[in-house]
Amino acid sequence: MPRVTSFTTHDIRFPTSRLLDGSDAMNPDPDYSAAYLVIGTDEPHGHTGHGFAFTIGRGNDVQVAAIAALEGHILGSDLDTLLDDMGATWRSLVHDSQLRWLGPEKGVMHMAVSAVVNALWDLKAKRAGLPLWRLLAAMSPEEIVALVDFRYLTDALTPEEALHILRGAEPGRRERTERLGADGYPAYTTTPGWLGYSDDKLVRLSLEAVADGFTLIKLKVGGDLDDDIRRMRLVRDAVGPDVRIAVDANQRWDVDSAIRWITALAPFDPWWVEEPTSPDDILGHAAIRRAVAPAKIATGEHVQNRIVFKQLLQAEALDVVQIDAARVAGVNENIAILLLAAKFGVPVCPHAGGVGLCELVQHLSMFDFVAVSGRIGDRVIEYVDHLHEHFLDPVRVRGAAYAAPSAPGYSAQMHAETLRRFAFPGGAEWATAPAPPAAAPLPAPTAEESTR
Amino acid sequence: MPRVTSFTTHDIRFPTSRLLDGSDAMNPDPDYSAAYLVIGTDEPHGHTGHGFAFTIGRGNDVQVAAIAALEGHILGSDLDTLLDDMGATWRSLVHDSQLRWLGPEKGVMHMAVSAVVNALWDLKAKRAGLPLWRLLAAMSPEEIVALVDFRYLTDALTPEEALHILRGAEPGRRERTERLGADGYPAYTTTPGWLGYSDDKLVRLSLEAVADGFTLIKLKVGGDLDDDIRRMRLVRDAVGPDVRIAVDANQRWDVDSAIRWITALAPFDPWWVEEPTSPDDILGHAAIRRAVAPAKIATGEHVQNRIVFKQLLQAEALDVVQIDAARVAGVNENIAILLLAAKFGVPVCPHAGGVGLCELVQHLSMFDFVAVSGRIGDRVIEYVDHLHEHFLDPVRVRGAAYAAPSAPGYSAQMHAETLRRFAFPGGAEWATAPAPPAAAPLPAPTAEESTR
Repeated sequence: MPRVTSFTTHDIRFPTSRLLDGSDAMNPDPDYSAAYLVIGTDEPHGHTGHGFAFTIGRGNDVQVAAIAALEGHILGSDLDTLLDDMGATWRSLVHDSQLRWLGPEKGVMHMAVSAVVNALWDLKAKRAGLPLWRLLAAMSPEEIVALVDFRYLTDALTPEEALHILRGAEPGRRERTERLGADGYPAYTTTPGWLGYSDDKLVRLSLEAVADGFTLIKLKVGGDLDDDIRRMRLVRDAVGPDVRIAVDANQRWDVDSAIRWITALAPFDPWWVEEPTSPDDILGHAAIRRAVAPAKIATGEHVQNRIVFKQLLQAEALDVVQIDAARVAGVNENIAILLLAAKFGVPVCPHAGGVGLCELVQHLSMFDFVAVSGRIGDRVIEYVDHLHEHFLDPVRVRGAAYAAPSAPGYSAQMHAETLRRFAFPGGAEWATAPAPPAAAPLPAPTAEESTR
Repeated sequence: MPRVTSFTTHDIRFPTSRLLDGSDAMNPDPDYSAAYLVIGTDEPHGHTGHGFAFTIGRGNDVQVAAIAALEGHILGSDLDTLLDDMGATWRSLVHDSQLRWLGPEKGVMHMAVSAVVNALWDLKAKRAGLPLWRLLAAMSPEEIVALVDFRYLTDALTPEEALHILRGAEPGRRERTERLGADGYPAYTTTPGWLGYSDDKLVRLSLEAVADGFTLIKLKVGGDLDDDIRRMRLVRDAVGPDVRIAVDANQRWDVDSAIRWITALAPFDPWWVEEPTSPDDILGHAAIRRAVAPAKIATGEHVQNRIVFKQLLQAEALDVVQIDAARVAGVNENIAILLLAAKFGVPVCPHAGGVGLCELVQHLSMFDFVAVSGRIGDRVIEYVDHLHEHFLDPVRVRGAAYAAPSAPGYSAQMHAETLRRFAFPGGAEWATAPAPPAAAPLPAPTAEESTR
């Protein structure tokens, strides 16, 4: 009877703030980081399960402590019991009777559950010899429904409705799997548009993206309206009217300023406006969406759990659902969100980037296409070309599409050398490097707000 | 120029699960705990500032780690700069450009900010020689508005509107202060109604509460409907029709089951129904409230921040706002919530209990009465008679009223002996005691849910 015999955490940080990669209106100086977990077993020649929570530097140690607090649920447990009923395992982690006080189901503790759940899925998929998306897509509708916790969802989605959605997608699973193998899954790129980049770099990278086949690129906005208009005009002029340009405000605005700002950018035809305000503000997103229609509203990378996604859909606050692989409680909760999005008929275009988020979320979108929504034409996965070299099975994006992963697992495993070199603070990268940035405050409210 | 010279955290846990004090439908085995912070300075014969986040056991170490992650904002800082502009200090903590990724503004990291902010207010009030409520109530409307971060609030409450509310309450501040000194602030009690208590104990404690002058008592519900009906009937029969009985489901229900359950309890005339579902479910609370009117809906102890409170008020989802002193980011954010509640005309009846929450929140209600809402007749503060003996300035509840605190500070300071004895895991209470309970899963969905 195989058991979990190790549960090892790592504080891994990449000094990305030195280059302003990843800078946006709310995150001026991120050091992309992973609170990383490796689960080991006593199986002879057995696999290890890898998972992580993504953070942007300070506090990655807190995130590691939160993952460690879940050790008692996993270490020493019977492996088959854990992995055979991943629905029950998920519930035991999320609903721990004392730890739930620290959320419930949000923030540091919930992201820690994500790391553990995803590591278990990585291990389960490796043992099955399948990439995660294929493992999930081979499960029956009943098995998939059993992975989902419907607590707090039943006013919007019942188990019976979920089953109905999944059964409706059973015909054609094989054809869609083959299509993913041949064509991959459409991608869009955020690489050109970071706020810290110069105008020249912005235009050059935008043109490179279009030359690489991307038909949707994304710009960070929200710092200064005049700057945003100039940058948006530069890119629109450079790429022409047929390339879609999404903009991302990273939560910078209040409701009224969002409406004014989006209206000012409308002449440049933004494809969607992402995170216009607080991810907690369901009614605010709905008010903004009503005011700026037909501009599309997108959010999700900071949406804390399925209960908030449920309400964003109920309130008709969103045109695009942006799931994140490592903020909600891992694979199981993302399946709940995929089912909610399918029920409400809203496309899912995942958030990715950071470190490893592309590697993970591609599996969820491919599973969604094969076994949940059956749709792909209105969907794209974010792509950012940072830090993939640290993974054993990095994403392969060619012709603006994610190639379907074929290696067993959840593509979550970093190289052992990365875990040594980028360990914080003792790894070689940090021992010999300048200190990370000091704590910086959030940028002040926008000029429009401060002068009102 | 005085500086902060120490920033010391303590993991303090009380073995309350041994007696089932504090047991409810979602928290069957709490060990009331505090992630506790002491801030020291180099002032000769200077004061120390004390603050804490309340947890229920496991994970208190994670909460301590999160408080420690904020040390860089405080340790070594100029004390007058920190304390003279508490609005700016609050912003620097809440909007740290990297730590905010771990929320934003929710869960472990936000509760950590609460501990730090509250410790600073404790220190500021001690230096001023005033209890916190009097320090706050002596500030001008402009000074109070400057404490509040209006980011994400301006669609519901602008600084100008807040100023208008505060100016409206300026006349009569002195009379209301004197009234609090004479009469105290009304309290209600949860002591009788914990779910783990026998029927006999429930009735006996309910009658004792009425004899002590309480006109509102609260019962925990949500475990089993038949049990709840029996317990509610027993208490109603014992106390008669004129004593108000609130019920508290501690998030146990989905929307539909909440409506069915509350309807079944209606014949026993519950005064309010607390936490019927997830604290994240704004639209769910609104749907439940519409369906069960005129029964009142209350929530707030797990509401993560001012943005969710804003929406609960916008959606007309609440009859009672239950602030918590240590879940949102401390005094400043609670002032924002008091102002929102005043704007929407909804009474504030704080959550308390746990360890130290009564000590803190009394200051906020008294400040609200003197300087914000000016109202007291429709308000009560929760009272639970646990663990007050650990505080230097414990609450004094007599004749079902909180006596106005008079000692300088925020009543947050525990005895040094408590910090030694209940330190986890090394303190004497834990070194010689049985181990705390193993991780337990959340109770299964209600029978109604599982058989649907």
